Amino acid sequence: MSNPTTSKANKTAISPTREENYPEWYQQVVRAADLAETSPVRGCMVIKPWGYAIWENIQRVMDKMFKDTGHKNAYFPLFIPMSYLEKEAQHVEGFAKECAVVTHSKLEAGPDGKLIPASPLEEPLIVRPTSETIIGESFSRWIQSYRDLPLLINQWANVVRMEMRTRLFLRTTEFLWQEGHTAHATQEEAMEESLRMLGVYADFAINYMAMPVLQGEKTESERFPGADRTFCIEAMMQDKKALQAGTSHFLGQNFSKSSNIKFLDADGQEKFAWTTSWGTSTRLIGGLIMTHSDDDGLIIPPRLAPTHVVIIPVLHKEESRTQVLDYCEKLKKDLRNINFAGRLLEVEIDARDLRGGDKMWHWIKRGAPMILEIGPRDIAENSVFLTRRDKSVKEKSAQKRTEFLATVAKQLQEMQDNLLNRALAFREANTVKIDTKEDFYKFFEGENSGFAYAHWNGSAEVEEKIKADLKVTIRCIPFDGDKEPGKCVITGEPSKQRVYFAKSY
Amino acid sequence: MSNPTTSKANKTAISPTREENYPEWYQQVVRAADLAETSPVRGCMVIKPWGYAIWENIQRVMDKMFKDTGHKNAYFPLFIPMSYLEKEAQHVEGFAKECAVVTHSKLEAGPDGKLIPASPLEEPLIVRPTSETIIGESFSRWIQSYRDLPLLINQWANVVRMEMRTRLFLRTTEFLWQEGHTAHATQEEAMEESLRMLGVYADFAINYMAMPVLQGEKTESERFPGADRTFCIEAMMQDKKALQAGTSHFLGQNFSKSSNIKFLDADGQEKFAWTTSWGTSTRLIGGLIMTHSDDDGLIIPPRLAPTHVVIIPVLHKEESRTQVLDYCEKLKKDLRNINFAGRLLEVEIDARDLRGGDKMWHWIKRGAPMILEIGPRDIAENSVFLTRRDKSVKEKSAQKRTEFLATVAKQLQEMQDNLLNRALAFREANTVKIDTKEDFYKFFEGENSGFAYAHWNGSAEVEEKIKADLKVTIRCIPFDGDKEPGKCVITGEPSKQRVYFAKSY
Repeated sequence: MSNPTTSKANKTAISPTREENYPEWYQQVVRAADLAETSPVRGCMVIKPWGYAIWENIQRVMDKMFKDTGHKNAYFPLFIPMSYLEKEAQHVEGFAKECAVVTHSKLEAGPDGKLIPASPLEEPLIVRPTSETIIGESFSRWIQSYRDLPLLINQWANVVRMEMRTRLFLRTTEFLWQEGHTAHATQEEAMEESLRMLGVYADFAINYMAMPVLQGEKTESERFPGADRTFCIEAMMQDKKALQAGTSHFLGQNFSKSSNIKFLDADGQEKFAWTTSWGTSTRLIGGLIMTHSDDDGLIIPPRLAPTHVVIIPVLHKEESRTQVLDYCEKLKKDLRNINFAGRLLEVEIDARDLRGGDKMWHWIKRGAPMILEIGPRDIAENSVFLTRRDKSVKEKSAQKRTEFLATVAKQLQEMQDNLLNRALAFREANTVKIDTKEDFYKFFEGENSGFAYAHWNGSAEVEEKIKADLKVTIRCIPFDGDKEPGKCVITGEPSKQRVYFAKSY
Repeated sequence: MSNPTTSKANKTAISPTREENYPEWYQQVVRAADLAETSPVRGCMVIKPWGYAIWENIQRVMDKMFKDTGHKNAYFPLFIPMSYLEKEAQHVEGFAKECAVVTHSKLEAGPDGKLIPASPLEEPLIVRPTSETIIGESFSRWIQSYRDLPLLINQWANVVRMEMRTRLFLRTTEFLWQEGHTAHATQEEAMEESLRMLGVYADFAINYMAMPVLQGEKTESERFPGADRTFCIEAMMQDKKALQAGTSHFLGQNFSKSSNIKFLDADGQEKFAWTTSWGTSTRLIGGLIMTHSDDDGLIIPPRLAPTHVVIIPVLHKEESRTQVLDYCEKLKKDLRNINFAGRLLEVEIDARDLRGGDKMWHWIKRGAPMILEIGPRDIAENSVFLTRRDKSVKEKSAQKRTEFLATVAKQLQEMQDNLLNRALAFREANTVKIDTKEDFYKFFEGENSGFAYAHWNGSAEVEEKIKADLKVTIRCIPFDGDKEPGKCVITGEPSKQRVYFAKSY
């Protein structure tokens, strides 16, 4: 990545720009921010330290939310016996097409000295694509009585789906995720849980990722394999496509019947439990990148930033070197005592032996929220020279040291709010009520997207048609919004409410 | 598990006792404490919430230690191309015999309608047994110049080794671990790193697990496959066998040569990096159990306890119910504000509709450090009634509420110290200097163990012989201890220093 300050004024740090080639811009942001890279294992990525630190922050915040709502973490086997996948008809259909199958338990030297698989397993094992069936087996033993319910479990784990076309964070063969699995005595409680956890996801997306999301239900054809109902949060990326950022499933009694999860109720009757599952993954990082980043690289919402403030000491002159570094260390120490959104500020001094401009662009591309340049002149004036990543790179401000320390947490929250508001305004500007088929087809012409808020007759045929014609799907039937009836934008048939249509990741 | 209070006075909560059948006692403690269970997948365990919460505490503390010593977390693929394992000769020999091999990427219905593996992979994939080779591939690209060194990376992950004989936590097909991988410009720096991380492990074992450990080096025959030198911490379990609780490997240039990790040094020369790796796993939980637990169940060192204080409200009478519960809630709130060893106290009120004795034994078996029983009489006297898990179950003390709040952190640290001192005394009592072959064979007769501190001639033949004869291995060549020469306890040949021999897990 060349240093844009050395080139003409309007050059950006990322090439191509979003405008020029959005998918390639995305790859270049991931690379320039040093978040992740492809690996020699087809479809698997390496998550590099800066990317993984964002995931750690996501985990830390979400994990607390799960615990605050009564869930406990546990860990279940990576492998699932092949026969388990057969238990639930929809489930096997949904996952059999893309799973990693372990068939041997050893390697030995073949005739040419090269290794070959040996010791075939009696029953092949599947690397978990999701854990409903294997967790169901445990639940069937853990649950005996209504007193054992609700059972509220979460797992942080890796899962594998042998996807053909992959893209860093957005769709990878192996990904990291959390999967909640709960069992309840009644349908009502299970439904409440599904919706509660969707609410937790929405809260996290909005208040930590600064990513506005729609909450709603998937249509039957977009449901999780084996679920009675699937709820989701959907966000709009800067190319106006939708990203499904989290799903929560009401599984009814489908999995409790296939896994035999029964309990003796207070009324003395033996009943099948009602179960739910819900998940989010490293895909969230893809959403974070595509919601906020610009043509100079990544922008990280301050609440999830691995480092809040980077200090670049200006070390042009040897005689002021010690003074500048001492001042920076002292400032770092003061900043490290300041609380922002539930944790102490993370601060890094970049004293590498590189040109100041190179260091500045290094951190801009990585999306550090605040960058301070501090040299002898700033020290003399007792001030800091601040670049905020939510503003133009050229817009810098000098702030008195004491003033900065007193307001840094407030300024970070302002940035957080700015990012959310900007994303919200973008989504609103690109969401359109559409009432005719002609307008609908025009809206999604070529590579165009956006959210079309339109009526739908409830049929899978319409979904198939627009998918084939336009690559458009119904993203969700929203909980909010007007519920007045109308006519299907495609067929003119009666519709109960508008739904959101878009192209998607 | 029956309730021992209802039986005769000397009955213990765990049956058999350690004395009666140690391996079975271990399994029963794991079950009674609700830590983990076997799964239908051969050799894989399910880590239940109480066991996983201990692992989360281990992770939290260690992760901070790794970050404080400059390491960053990252994540690498679960799968390793089969050919990668062939890169390092020792390495392939060490792991090829026990690895899970993925050969297909899909399932389809066979002639009888049952699923069968389909879509064979071009090259089989190995589920990582350890990640040196796949991380080496990334390092070879990340490292170009001496400025990129040292590279200090850690990964929290699951790994798989197809073990034939497994035991919960101690040896399982899949286990959770952390693996550090670092690269350095010089041999000295790599060696320093190996020893530094061994020191971190020892610090953690001693000060958090209250598990005394010997630090030393493995003999050549016990080395990690591909390492130049392997360092380890070794603990003594209550059956006097050794448990290897963590290893740190100085890999020399073996993996940098096989993975082509080269850098341009400051002197303009291209050189191979020097690498290390180091790991600990969920096996630590097995060590924790076997170091401290007694015939009434688990004992958890307070610094790693998921819950420090359990409050059992005594709710015999309906009229005092609200008063007692309110008092307990208030006490919980006050306790939750007290800091112990870097985190706020975790407190749980057990208000389940069960007999008080059952609840008491529930928490004793799970190893909660402190159990408070609080009824109307305690409230009247403004006191709490305390059972400490490091003391006899029958030894309870009444403490004034204010006094308890003022000293609870100190008392927990006392417990922590007691556990460490008890384990240390046990190890010392069972470590014996042995100077004749006869005494050596007698010491390890039948199921007997202990640490034999004896001279060794440095030969693998002696190691093979005592392994075949007695199932005894050299646990480590200790850093500390007397370095005076002597004569090999088996052959009488010259020896430079004493080493530790034991049976082991």
